[in-house]
Amino acid sequence: MLSSLAIAPAPVDLAVQVTAAIDGKTKPPGSLGRIEQLALQLALAQHTGTPQAQPARLLLFAADHGLVAEGVSAWPQAVTLQMVQNFLAGGAAANAFARACGARLSVVNAGVAASLPAHEALVDVPVARGTRNARREDAMSEAECAQALETGARLALQACKSGERVLLLGDMGIGNTSSATLLAHCLTGQSLETLTGPGAGLDAGGVAHKRAVLEACIARRGSVNGGVDALCAFGGFEIAMMAGAIVAAASAQAVVIIDGFIASAAALVVQTDRPEALAHCVFAHRSAEPGHGFVLEALGARPLLDLEMRLGEGTGALLALPLLRAACHMLSDMASFDSAGVAGPS
Amino acid sequence: MLSSLAIAPAPVDLAVQVTAAIDGKTKPPGSLGRIEQLALQLALAQHTGTPQAQPARLLLFAADHGLVAEGVSAWPQAVTLQMVQNFLAGGAAANAFARACGARLSVVNAGVAASLPAHEALVDVPVARGTRNARREDAMSEAECAQALETGARLALQACKSGERVLLLGDMGIGNTSSATLLAHCLTGQSLETLTGPGAGLDAGGVAHKRAVLEACIARRGSVNGGVDALCAFGGFEIAMMAGAIVAAASAQAVVIIDGFIASAAALVVQTDRPEALAHCVFAHRSAEPGHGFVLEALGARPLLDLEMRLGEGTGALLALPLLRAACHMLSDMASFDSAGVAGPS
Repeated sequence: MLSSLAIAPAPVDLAVQVTAAIDGKTKPPGSLGRIEQLALQLALAQHTGTPQAQPARLLLFAADHGLVAEGVSAWPQAVTLQMVQNFLAGGAAANAFARACGARLSVVNAGVAASLPAHEALVDVPVARGTRNARREDAMSEAECAQALETGARLALQACKSGERVLLLGDMGIGNTSSATLLAHCLTGQSLETLTGPGAGLDAGGVAHKRAVLEACIARRGSVNGGVDALCAFGGFEIAMMAGAIVAAASAQAVVIIDGFIASAAALVVQTDRPEALAHCVFAHRSAEPGHGFVLEALGARPLLDLEMRLGEGTGALLALPLLRAACHMLSDMASFDSAGVAGPS
Repeated sequence: MLSSLAIAPAPVDLAVQVTAAIDGKTKPPGSLGRIEQLALQLALAQHTGTPQAQPARLLLFAADHGLVAEGVSAWPQAVTLQMVQNFLAGGAAANAFARACGARLSVVNAGVAASLPAHEALVDVPVARGTRNARREDAMSEAECAQALETGARLALQACKSGERVLLLGDMGIGNTSSATLLAHCLTGQSLETLTGPGAGLDAGGVAHKRAVLEACIARRGSVNGGVDALCAFGGFEIAMMAGAIVAAASAQAVVIIDGFIASAAALVVQTDRPEALAHCVFAHRSAEPGHGFVLEALGARPLLDLEMRLGEGTGALLALPLLRAACHMLSDMASFDSAGVAGPS
C-alpha cells in the first residue's frame, strides 16, 4: 500500500528561485537561519514559491497495544480510552495547544480496546480493539496492517482535499513507546539497551522490565523484512496509520509535521519503503524519551525544538506549527532590498 | 531612574498553587518539560494562576551609533533609517513574523541619525540623532542616558496600561552589536576576543578590525561603574530604552520577551541595578552571534529556541511568543485527572 501513491518531485528550477527570493529579502543573507531552510523545504514540498502553513489539522491517532499485558507501561490500558474522551471533551494538552495556535483537530480511533460513542470530532475507523500481544504473536496480520496504512492514507488525502496545507501527526496509546522502540530497533539497528526509555513514567526497575519484555519480543520474532513487516510484528495501529498518512500527504504536496518518538517511528517505516516522502516531513522537536535522538539521527532529521517534552498527542507538532507560519510569511510578506530601497553591505 | 519603579514579589503561595495545578493536569507529570516551567514563570510574573500571553506588542527600538564611523559594520549607517521606513511600510522580517503570530508592533525612534516623517506606527522620541563615537568620547551623557531609560520605561508602562500582557523587545541599529559587545565585556568580564563576532555579516578581517576598535574604546574609557555607566560609555539609545522598558514592565507585572544579543545586553544592564526584574524576562532564543551564549550564561538564562538566527528586530521574540501562549492555554484550558475522570499511573 505504501507503494501505490505517486510522489512528484518539485519543479526543477524551484529551489534556485526560492533561494534567490530568500536571499533578496531585507535582512542580512542567512540571518534567519533555520527559518530560511524551513521556508525552502516548505516551498519544495508544496511545489510553490509561496507555501502556506494554514489551514492546518492535527490527526490524533489513538490505539491500544496488546503488549501492555506484559507490564510495559506505568499506566493502565484504560487510560487510552479515557484520554480519547478527554480529547473529545477538549480538555487535553493537544486541545489546549491546538486552540493556542489555531489548528483544527481530528481524533482518530485507529484501534482502541473499547467501542466509542459517536462524536463530531471523532473519526471512528478502528482496525481492531487493540493489537495482539507482540510477546506472544505478531501484533497484527498483514491484512490488518494494510487496512491501517490505507485508512491513514485515506484520512490524510481527505484532509488535503478539504484544503489543509499542513497535517500534524500525533498519537495516543498506552504502551506505544514499546511498539516504537521495537520498530526503532529493527529499522535503525540500535540496541534495545540504548533505545528503551521510561515512556510516560516508568522508574528504573520498570524500564529494566520493559527492556526484558522487548528483548523477548525480538527473540520471539527473529528478523523482520522492512518497515511494513516490522509493523506487523510489533504494531501499532496508530503508527501504521501515521505511516500511511505521511505518504499520502506527500503525494498531495502537503507538509507533515512529525511530533515525537512515536510519529518518528512511523517516519522510519516510511523511510524503508518510500524515502522520498520524508522531504515533506518537518520534525517538530527532540523528545525527552532517550531513544528519540537515535531515531532522528537515522532519519537524518534535525528537529526545530528541544523543550524536554515527552507527552505525545501531537503537542510538539502544535508548538512547531507557528514556526512554519513564520517561514511562509517570510516568503509571502517580506520586501526585497530593491522594492524597499534598502542598501546592501558596503 | 532604574531604581524608581517598585517591583512587587509574587504572592507567597502562588508557586505552590500553580505547581500543583500543573501536576494535576491530564498528562504524565513533567511531560510538557520546559512549557511547564514557562507556565510557572508567567504565573509568578503576572501574579495569577491564569497568566495571559495576549495581547502582546513588539516595541522595536531603532537608533544609530557614532562608532560606525570607525568601520565596525558591514552595512552603511543609512540602513538604520531605511529599515525603519521598511518597518513602517510593513515589509521587514519583524512585520512578517508579527503578522504570523498576531502581535502588535510599535516602531520607536530612539535616536536615528535622521528626522522621520510622522506615521501612525512610529513613536518618535529620539534622544539625539545617534550616539557619539565611543572610540573618541562617551556615547551619551548621563542626562541622555536617563532620558533614554525614562522614555523606554514610559513606553512600556503605556503599553501595559493599554492592556498588553507581554512586551517583546527588539532592536534595529547599524553598529549595535559593537555597543552590545562592549556592554557584555564590561558587565560579564568576558574578553573582547571571545565576545566579538560578525554582527550582520563581517568577514574575518572585518571582525579583527571591529575587535581592535572595541579594544580601543575600552582603553579610552578605562573602567565603568555599573550598568548605567556602561551605557553612557558605550551606548546605545535603543539598548538604554530597552533596559528602562524591562524594569517598567516588571513593575507592571507584565512579561518581557528578550530577543537576541542586543536585547540581552539591555538585560545585563538591568541585572546590575534591578536584578529582580529578570524574573519577568523570557529569553527567546540563542543567537548565532557568538557572544550571545556568554551573555546568556551570565544572566543565568536558558533560551527557548535555537534556530541559528542573528537578525534582531525582535524576530526571535516573535517566534517564542506562541510558546508562551501554549503555556498559558495549558494552565487555563486543560482538564485535571479528577475533572476528566482519567486514571493515574498503576
